[in-house]
Amino acid sequence: MIGVGYWGPNLIRNFSDLDDAQVVACSDLSQERLNKIAKRYPGVKWTTNYEELLRDPDVDAVVVATPVSTHYPIARAALEHGKHVMIEKPLADSAFRSLDLVERAKAAGKILMVDHTFIYTSAVRKMRDLIDSGELGDILYFDSIRVNLGLFQKDINVIWDLAPHDLSIMDYLLRAEPIAVSAIGASHAGNNIANIAYMTLRFPNNVIAHFHVNWLAPVKIRQTLLGCSKKMVVYDDVEPTDKIRVYDKGITVNGGNGSAEKRYQALVGYRTGDVLIPKIDTTEALQRVAQEFVSSIIENRAPLTDGLAGYRVVRILEAAQQSLEANGREVLLQEAVVESLSRS
Amino acid sequence: MIGVGYWGPNLIRNFSDLDDAQVVACSDLSQERLNKIAKRYPGVKWTTNYEELLRDPDVDAVVVATPVSTHYPIARAALEHGKHVMIEKPLADSAFRSLDLVERAKAAGKILMVDHTFIYTSAVRKMRDLIDSGELGDILYFDSIRVNLGLFQKDINVIWDLAPHDLSIMDYLLRAEPIAVSAIGASHAGNNIANIAYMTLRFPNNVIAHFHVNWLAPVKIRQTLLGCSKKMVVYDDVEPTDKIRVYDKGITVNGGNGSAEKRYQALVGYRTGDVLIPKIDTTEALQRVAQEFVSSIIENRAPLTDGLAGYRVVRILEAAQQSLEANGREVLLQEAVVESLSRS
Amino acid sequence: MIGVGYWGPNLIRNFSDLDDAQVVACSDLSQERLNKIAKRYPGVKWTTNYEELLRDPDVDAVVVATPVSTHYPIARAALEHGKHVMIEKPLADSAFRSLDLVERAKAAGKILMVDHTFIYTSAVRKMRDLIDSGELGDILYFDSIRVNLGLFQKDINVIWDLAPHDLSIMDYLLRAEPIAVSAIGASHAGNNIANIAYMTLRFPNNVIAHFHVNWLAPVKIRQTLLGCSKKMVVYDDVEPTDKIRVYDKGITVNGGNGSAEKRYQALVGYRTGDVLIPKIDTTEALQRVAQEFVSSIIENRAPLTDGLAGYRVVRILEAAQQSLEANGREVLLQEAVVESLSRS
Amino acid sequence: MIGVGYWGPNLIRNFSDLDDAQVVACSDLSQERLNKIAKRYPGVKWTTNYEELLRDPDVDAVVVATPVSTHYPIARAALEHGKHVMIEKPLADSAFRSLDLVERAKAAGKILMVDHTFIYTSAVRKMRDLIDSGELGDILYFDSIRVNLGLFQKDINVIWDLAPHDLSIMDYLLRAEPIAVSAIGASHAGNNIANIAYMTLRFPNNVIAHFHVNWLAPVKIRQTLLGCSKKMVVYDDVEPTDKIRVYDKGITVNGGNGSAEKRYQALVGYRTGDVLIPKIDTTEALQRVAQEFVSSIIENRAPLTDGLAGYRVVRILEAAQQSLEANGREVLLQEAVVESLSRS
Repeated sequence: MIGVGYWGPNLIRNFSDLDDAQVVACSDLSQERLNKIAKRYPGVKWTTNYEELLRDPDVDAVVVATPVSTHYPIARAALEHGKHVMIEKPLADSAFRSLDLVERAKAAGKILMVDHTFIYTSAVRKMRDLIDSGELGDILYFDSIRVNLGLFQKDINVIWDLAPHDLSIMDYLLRAEPIAVSAIGASHAGNNIANIAYMTLRFPNNVIAHFHVNWLAPVKIRQTLLGCSKKMVVYDDVEPTDKIRVYDKGITVNGGNGSAEKRYQALVGYRTGDVLIPKIDTTEALQRVAQEFVSSIIENRAPLTDGLAGYRVVRILEAAQQSLEANGREVLLQEAVVESLSRS
Repeated sequence: MIGVGYWGPNLIRNFSDLDDAQVVACSDLSQERLNKIAKRYPGVKWTTNYEELLRDPDVDAVVVATPVSTHYPIARAALEHGKHVMIEKPLADSAFRSLDLVERAKAAGKILMVDHTFIYTSAVRKMRDLIDSGELGDILYFDSIRVNLGLFQKDINVIWDLAPHDLSIMDYLLRAEPIAVSAIGASHAGNNIANIAYMTLRFPNNVIAHFHVNWLAPVKIRQTLLGCSKKMVVYDDVEPTDKIRVYDKGITVNGGNGSAEKRYQALVGYRTGDVLIPKIDTTEALQRVAQEFVSSIIENRAPLTDGLAGYRVVRILEAAQQSLEANGREVLLQEAVVESLSRS
Repeated sequence: MIGVGYWGPNLIRNFSDLDDAQVVACSDLSQERLNKIAKRYPGVKWTTNYEELLRDPDVDAVVVATPVSTHYPIARAALEHGKHVMIEKPLADSAFRSLDLVERAKAAGKILMVDHTFIYTSAVRKMRDLIDSGELGDILYFDSIRVNLGLFQKDINVIWDLAPHDLSIMDYLLRAEPIAVSAIGASHAGNNIANIAYMTLRFPNNVIAHFHVNWLAPVKIRQTLLGCSKKMVVYDDVEPTDKIRVYDKGITVNGGNGSAEKRYQALVGYRTGDVLIPKIDTTEALQRVAQEFVSSIIENRAPLTDGLAGYRVVRILEAAQQSLEANGREVLLQEAVVESLSRS
Repeated sequence: MIGVGYWGPNLIRNFSDLDDAQVVACSDLSQERLNKIAKRYPGVKWTTNYEELLRDPDVDAVVVATPVSTHYPIARAALEHGKHVMIEKPLADSAFRSLDLVERAKAAGKILMVDHTFIYTSAVRKMRDLIDSGELGDILYFDSIRVNLGLFQKDINVIWDLAPHDLSIMDYLLRAEPIAVSAIGASHAGNNIANIAYMTLRFPNNVIAHFHVNWLAPVKIRQTLLGCSKKMVVYDDVEPTDKIRVYDKGITVNGGNGSAEKRYQALVGYRTGDVLIPKIDTTEALQRVAQEFVSSIIENRAPLTDGLAGYRVVRILEAAQQSLEANGREVLLQEAVVESLSRS
């Protein structure tokens, strides 16, 4: 474990519970944090110098839970020392560095995984199942809200902080390449770091995705609407148990494929039926994250959320950042990537 | 009453209840609709030709509840016949025509009012009171959602259909001039009319407003977040009684006004206190709308939602339309208005 | 219409909409109320003396919406004048008088119906369908809450005011004869009329029903739990659309039929699955009530909520009243009925 | 710690966090449970024989978290060995045994505490504060629901399992002696142990308390209505943060103190104002429980939930049990206590 701040202890607890893994050492710049871990897990070695940990032959794999800007150098060093690497979201602070890690891991024959925790929740998996079953039809839009009175980060804005969750969910459910990104935000803490932002993604076939992320909201809302051609889904992550609702609701378009005249007069029919709240199990997502990292190492296979999944999220974040700085000017993903790679 | 479709009967009922007014005549292109009215209100004259109604000396004032594209010609004709005019939202289909009506009404010495119904709800008035009292501090952002499985209009997109409500509320609460508008949407009925759209407005001083309007949502959401510097408000119009919640919650920024170094290190403090659900009375908003039109005529004064209020909403709609057609390119309000006026 | 107070205008509106019926006359002791009706329905005759109405040959049937204590004399007089009769809930103020009306209607060959409105709601009908389908299994308990800050009646306590709704629903869903009733309440308005009360009914086979009725509650709750052996239902009448939820949840009892030893060790298994919110239509219940009265007259058949249904509810109310006066002492229904009949 | 089943590990964790206390030993009949504790807390001694623990001179105080029927013998033995004792709710399985423990603790000069956890929650304390401030006026009724699909206990019925929580809250808030108890229930697992029950308590001055406890409900409801003369409170323990709502709502009774005639005509006025959701802190109640036990030992004073508080709850449970076995016949508390003491 490199970094045992807010998220680190949760990771240690979940890796400790695995049969196939052992937490052998951790590092952090803060001695105070290390003391807490040492008290709770007397058998775990600790150091304030993560390079010691990289040189430790007992260590096969590292989990990196440090500030975003340090992900790349630490992960790169870990790969160079022959360790498998799991990194907290977002994978790195640029698309180029994300791809670079992917390639280095490949070259080294090591596993590279990003902790997109929500992909491992029962709720998101259930939505994936519903899509795969064909029950929902085609996805028309993805609308996501993740707001509350949250911690104002000092090094990254609210998009880099919160949107990776929703982008990873979107990437997992839509399985499509966005064409363009735009983002608008505002800063209210006098430091020019956006604490509220709206991001829109355009996809082929009139598919649209939209994200509202906000550290300055009076209420906690974590809600996703999945508009589809047959049924629609509301995913409310604040609900303790009934997180997913499947609405047998929508429209039927008649005559839309005919002449221009006909298309103009397209008749829309409205359907409204039952609502289903499917049972979802209560396994902790982080337990599955830990297991997936260990299993992918043992089975020598790509993990579900591999480096490329991390890259796909980061390149959108990077394009959103460009758009944000240009007052919401639309940024084409293709161009953004080229620019990112050429800048390096 | 010109136009007795969906909204017209509600207007007739509310004007009928007034002591100072009498509903004397109504017109509609549909004989079927007129028959319904005739049955319920035997004393009211009816005609399929609204010009008869304009020539009727018993008629002092007309209420126009017809499709948006007909607002301007009907209202203009009514003013020319010396009638006071109230028009359903939006006032007209262009900023130019809106201003033209304002000027014609002024020249004719007649009242011109737009039915921005939500301004007359107890909930919105309560928010206005809270702002005026200084209790909320400065407004930082306005975030609004108005979605459900709604009627797919054939002549206007979802922004022109639903956003006038929220824009009028925003205009009433913020009392500020937006700098720029951007809007992105998608069409899923094969007719190129957006049924889902996101609109963002930038204001001076980092104030931002955002709108999600949607005819294709599985659930009915009508929620507004009002982020302010002292307290914050959630307005949930779907709630039957507890529509307004005032959160004694927010951040305190320290040191943000010092050197660059200091600004970077700006310390953010978090406050969280009680939540208040103020009692709001249950008077029907449309009753107040009808009364305001009649009172403004009797007292010969501008109504609360006068032609200029209607114009301010329409010019944003028009700019949003331009942005929508340019994939979300930001449109400066100043330029949009100039263009609108010059086009005419 | 005899009695045009709170509920009367709703009844007039619904009967007016029927093709097979005509509202010809109404009576009330209050001239003010009659004026309101006269204004809205100019064609309807009115009188302050209901006997005029009973003598009117244009009147085939009367609807009685007067205070409870007057139901019996008015209905009896109406039957004597050869009119069909529908009476607001509860049918009468005693079981004896209820049965007497049933017999008089039978002898006169006239329809006697009680307005148990909730039986005609889509939500209650849906629950009836679910029970009939066998999907829910056996009913184990019926738990109902009907509370809010309601009008403190001066002539009847909260059980006689609110419980008829829930008792009629229970009667319709359980289709079983209760063995015993107990009720406890309290009065807080200084007039010895209970404004909060709890009522419990025992049925054969360990089935139990419980009712909380309350005029002095800070929130409006109208919720019924239907505990069944296979699935369970929550009916929340305050919800605007999702009134019914069917939970695939419950217990499985193993070994409960063996020896005493085995019964003691009965193993309980727990099942928990999906939740279904069935679509229910939005037809106004009172429309169906009006139609049922008219149809039962035309077809000369017993209405769904006939006099006997009214009697079954009243005899429970009467027994509950006895129990209430005896601090909750259980009253056997059989004995209560005998006593009621012998008292007369 | 004696008993480390479901609740024991939570107690160990909270006592471990205290500065003034040390968890030195635990016992349980199950070696499997002990192994789990041993793994997590390597420094804690363990034994399958709790008497070893009582003889251990390192042990100053014991916490008893075993089945209800064993509370008395274990607590008695602990007091005889000179240990302070905290017992899980309910204190013992009879009022007599509860009082006996109180007297033995007093004679031995040792602390006797019952773990009425809810008394230590921020929500219940907030309600206590609201009552003390006089803001609510007089308490008129206490209505409590605690239902879900819960574990069917084999040794005690649902009243003994769940009602101690609500009775302890009621005892803490009302500070009044109930006159009489009645309870009705039903058993659906074939073992004659009630899994659903309703309990009513009568107090002087028309105050009433009612409890619905249920292991066989499809939804989790933990809601208390506190009806008062000035304001009313809804306490919803399922809400993650907004657990308490204070309603400025109620009735005003005029003229109720005059002649019989006047009392009959008592005029009831209705008040309805704002709703306040007070901020409550998020300290874990069990942390406060542990601290209170340790502090009361150090300061040699009665804990907030002392043996007498435990006794007051148990004597109601015992009376409720009698009533349950007599189909809800009301049991006078005074008589029930005399009987309980004389039986011994």
